[in-house]
Amino acid sequence: MGTFITVDIGGTQIRAAAYPENERQALAIRKTSTRAGSEATFDRMVGLIRSVYPADRSVLSITVAAPGPVDPYSGVIAAAPNIPGWMNFPLRDRLEDEFHVPAHLGNDANLAALGEWRFGAGQGHAHLLYLTVSTGIGGGVITDNQLLLGARGLAAELGHVTVLPDGPQCGCGQRGHLEAVAAGPAIAGYVRDQMAQGANSILQGVSDLSARAVSQAARQGDDLAIKALARAGEFIGMALADFLVVFNPSIVIFGGGVSTSGELLFAPLRESLRMHVMEPAYVHDLVITTAALGDDAGLLGALALAHTMQQRVSV
Amino acid sequence: MGTFITVDIGGTQIRAAAYPENERQALAIRKTSTRAGSEATFDRMVGLIRSVYPADRSVLSITVAAPGPVDPYSGVIAAAPNIPGWMNFPLRDRLEDEFHVPAHLGNDANLAALGEWRFGAGQGHAHLLYLTVSTGIGGGVITDNQLLLGARGLAAELGHVTVLPDGPQCGCGQRGHLEAVAAGPAIAGYVRDQMAQGANSILQGVSDLSARAVSQAARQGDDLAIKALARAGEFIGMALADFLVVFNPSIVIFGGGVSTSGELLFAPLRESLRMHVMEPAYVHDLVITTAALGDDAGLLGALALAHTMQQRVSV
Repeated sequence: MGTFITVDIGGTQIRAAAYPENERQALAIRKTSTRAGSEATFDRMVGLIRSVYPADRSVLSITVAAPGPVDPYSGVIAAAPNIPGWMNFPLRDRLEDEFHVPAHLGNDANLAALGEWRFGAGQGHAHLLYLTVSTGIGGGVITDNQLLLGARGLAAELGHVTVLPDGPQCGCGQRGHLEAVAAGPAIAGYVRDQMAQGANSILQGVSDLSARAVSQAARQGDDLAIKALARAGEFIGMALADFLVVFNPSIVIFGGGVSTSGELLFAPLRESLRMHVMEPAYVHDLVITTAALGDDAGLLGALALAHTMQQRVSV
Repeated sequence: MGTFITVDIGGTQIRAAAYPENERQALAIRKTSTRAGSEATFDRMVGLIRSVYPADRSVLSITVAAPGPVDPYSGVIAAAPNIPGWMNFPLRDRLEDEFHVPAHLGNDANLAALGEWRFGAGQGHAHLLYLTVSTGIGGGVITDNQLLLGARGLAAELGHVTVLPDGPQCGCGQRGHLEAVAAGPAIAGYVRDQMAQGANSILQGVSDLSARAVSQAARQGDDLAIKALARAGEFIGMALADFLVVFNPSIVIFGGGVSTSGELLFAPLRESLRMHVMEPAYVHDLVITTAALGDDAGLLGALALAHTMQQRVSV
């Protein structure tokens, strides 16, 4: 019986897990901080992997979920937010050189989609759209039971479609992208701007205002916070109307912290989708739900990729 | 040696062709008018197919490219523009009942994409985006050498993404869709509106102004006509910036009458794409070109589908 090692590189933590070949319950999970002291991140990752490595060394592959632009074909990380020095970093080759087993690399949102399809809320859906809404907005798409990657592995960057031409600037430099108007920082920024213009809110005076604080205030009935979440939901619904005519999925799965806001986000989202969708056939029988894998989305998404790659090797 | 029959249902003509199993040169092509007299369209289509049917009856399949929403899985035409009475019309089953051979059905823009990928400008590209710009805007997408269909076969309706929120009404009823601002009627409509507001143009006094007339006037140096094509190109470039982050294709192929306007359309389109694309990696090595199959796109796209389906049967 072989073992799959998977690694999830997050903004604050790197986690590694070991899974028996036919199970989704990890034998062991260990974590380290993404930025910690002076030791190089790669060396700490190697140490972390060794800490979950099975004694019998029966490892089939090491599969890594990484944020930001990665090339799944070459295994190179173009740039990793929060990891200085990882520019065009050949992570796959470095891991294969170190451990002498096959290594694979995928974008974390893509792999979360694959994980939900294989193990989570999307099981049985051949056409699936996954959106994670947190500090950014990422996407992953399954079409006909295949992960959509594109020519250079850069497909499904669904936070970077334009929903408000000439709107606020996005982290990527362009204007009016979905991420720039509906991700966590945009939700908090909207509340800040409205308060600066005199709007009332229990959030007045809160320093370092976060989308989480806005979500809590909304649950307590704060009108401005409710409006901020509704506004994000409306923009997401508009973008979703486009994604439906583009992909025609049978399920849309929402992950990320902002998605835990419940109906305060999803009621306006569904209403906006209903208003903007081209025709009812696209929403007939469409499932809209939240992710099932929670914090383990990265590890289990990487495990799903490991399974897929293993099948290709076996065939 | 078997024969493939393919049929292309156009707005004005229905064409049928017979192809030897391993060739893309038709043995025979016949056509009839889409709307003609009182005889039912289906009966005329049957007669047309019989007129190209091989004497040895060695037909492997009949494959039909149809406009508008079709369900490729069930072979049902939801609605056919220009063919009254074809609402939820089970074309595949009707053809199989009539000819006792397998029949297949696909959306014409999807099949044109498949045809360009198999026989035309997109050969060798595993990730391909096709846009046809004429009286409407249709799309077809190949990802990892597979035609994107979606859960109900309704994917890749690329003319119905929003590029101008609250913009002009689209044929589908929504507002600001790409089709509503950049297809032929929108180009002609823009010129008409500007002339009504006093703009000068050699097109003044032309009745039934068409995009083709605008294109001709632009080639003659008419400023308003040039501006109208540039405006359409800018909107298409904006939408294309979104399509690239969504699909990450290695080639974009433009078909349809408006696409024959050359640099008057494509120079502003490329400039708009360059301005709006999220990052240069998406346009690095990207091929932007026009369709190679011309009037035979529907027949050859249906032939490409017939090949694909035949391989599945053989496997």
